[in-house]
Amino acid sequence: MPQIVLLLEYRGTAYHGFQLQLEIPTIQGELEVALKRLTGEECRVRAAGRTDAGVHARGQVASFGTASHLPEAAFVAGLNSHLPGDIAVRAARHIEDSFDVRRHARSREYSYLVLNRATPSPLLADQAYWVKQPLDGGAMARAAQALAGRHDFRAFAAPLGNRSPVRTIYRAHISRKGWLLSFHFEADSFLPRQVRRMVGALLEMGRGRLSGEGMTALLEGTGTAEFAAPPWGLYLEKVNYDVQLFPQEDENL
Amino acid sequence: MPQIVLLLEYRGTAYHGFQLQLEIPTIQGELEVALKRLTGEECRVRAAGRTDAGVHARGQVASFGTASHLPEAAFVAGLNSHLPGDIAVRAARHIEDSFDVRRHARSREYSYLVLNRATPSPLLADQAYWVKQPLDGGAMARAAQALAGRHDFRAFAAPLGNRSPVRTIYRAHISRKGWLLSFHFEADSFLPRQVRRMVGALLEMGRGRLSGEGMTALLEGTGTAEFAAPPWGLYLEKVNYDVQLFPQEDENL
Repeated sequence: MPQIVLLLEYRGTAYHGFQLQLEIPTIQGELEVALKRLTGEECRVRAAGRTDAGVHARGQVASFGTASHLPEAAFVAGLNSHLPGDIAVRAARHIEDSFDVRRHARSREYSYLVLNRATPSPLLADQAYWVKQPLDGGAMARAAQALAGRHDFRAFAAPLGNRSPVRTIYRAHISRKGWLLSFHFEADSFLPRQVRRMVGALLEMGRGRLSGEGMTALLEGTGTAEFAAPPWGLYLEKVNYDVQLFPQEDENL
Repeated sequence: MPQIVLLLEYRGTAYHGFQLQLEIPTIQGELEVALKRLTGEECRVRAAGRTDAGVHARGQVASFGTASHLPEAAFVAGLNSHLPGDIAVRAARHIEDSFDVRRHARSREYSYLVLNRATPSPLLADQAYWVKQPLDGGAMARAAQALAGRHDFRAFAAPLGNRSPVRTIYRAHISRKGWLLSFHFEADSFLPRQVRRMVGALLEMGRGRLSGEGMTALLEGTGTAEFAAPPWGLYLEKVNYDVQLFPQEDENL
């Protein structure tokens, strides 16, 4: 069956994550309802990254098989007309059957936004994590550098069953603009909760509650990074493949 | 009676503007309820700029008289604990009785955010105006420059009664970053609807539906700038006084 890939942006606040759950609002559920309305088919949508409840996306990639011969632009306009305002299709593309949106992803990029000032921001509510205490930026930047590379990240993951806890982080950096701290991570893939627990550990370092030795131990797979930063600061920014799936102008800022 | 000035941030989406209206949610109404809870007094709050329904603020300034002797920090923390999450006090300061938050304002700064791309942004819904069509940035920039200075702005205003239509715009500029167009205006004060109608006229120029001559005529007080850009892209950024009311670190990015 012909396959379509979608580039998606969504605000995760009102949803229990990407993955379909019965009688609970999910991104996948909304997409499948919109696809049913547009094509009349019961499509099954798969995403490159399963975002948790409350997590946002600027560049999620998802695929589905369809017998419909609608042009790509009609999938964009048609789905957007059926989707709620907090989910949007940014681009659509026909792709070969053999393409696997999850296994063929070369890397994923996530960002995490922290508002670091004395008072909260109504304009950023649900879109950034508010941290009142001053943070030691130098300690956090050094620790972020230590996260990069190939490590056993079990200390940063939710229970894994028999999955491998080893992942490779290609980039980990933090930038500050005024009160806003942006964390940015790129890896081959991430373990469940990994980004939020890495951010949590970095913030604990910034608050002086986790030492460099403590971070080293976590990176050696010892102990647990207990504090996961809350979901509403997290964004799936981009999923990279060997080929560029969507035109450059449809990518993020 | 001693007076307090507040620096406020709010998301205007759920409110019918700043100004109190009976049985309708307003920013002023929420502030007065929170003040009643905090101080036990019936305070009357006045704002430097009356934002319309749906309009946001990063730097609104408001004042009230109070017999309470709470320290400034207690007003910040206490009001924030009573206010809904879409309104926040950023700073508070005791000020002399003679201070008039409205008449003593030397200038106001507003910004307007436009998302200019083919598809909508769920993450910016209610916080930017989505314009699908490509816009002629050069024509808009030239027209923005023409708005600066002292003009009769009646063509850009809601009905004025016998108020003067003359205002001085100190700065008018447009910047673009990726898909986001930011309009920024500073003036002694603005007429009702003026910013939204100026942005509307600039966007009409960008779409090629208003000519340079048409804009000149509007600036000479002829005709009406019919299209007002919608409220959800508009932000009251800052109110300036001869003295700096709040420490620099409490100002906007």
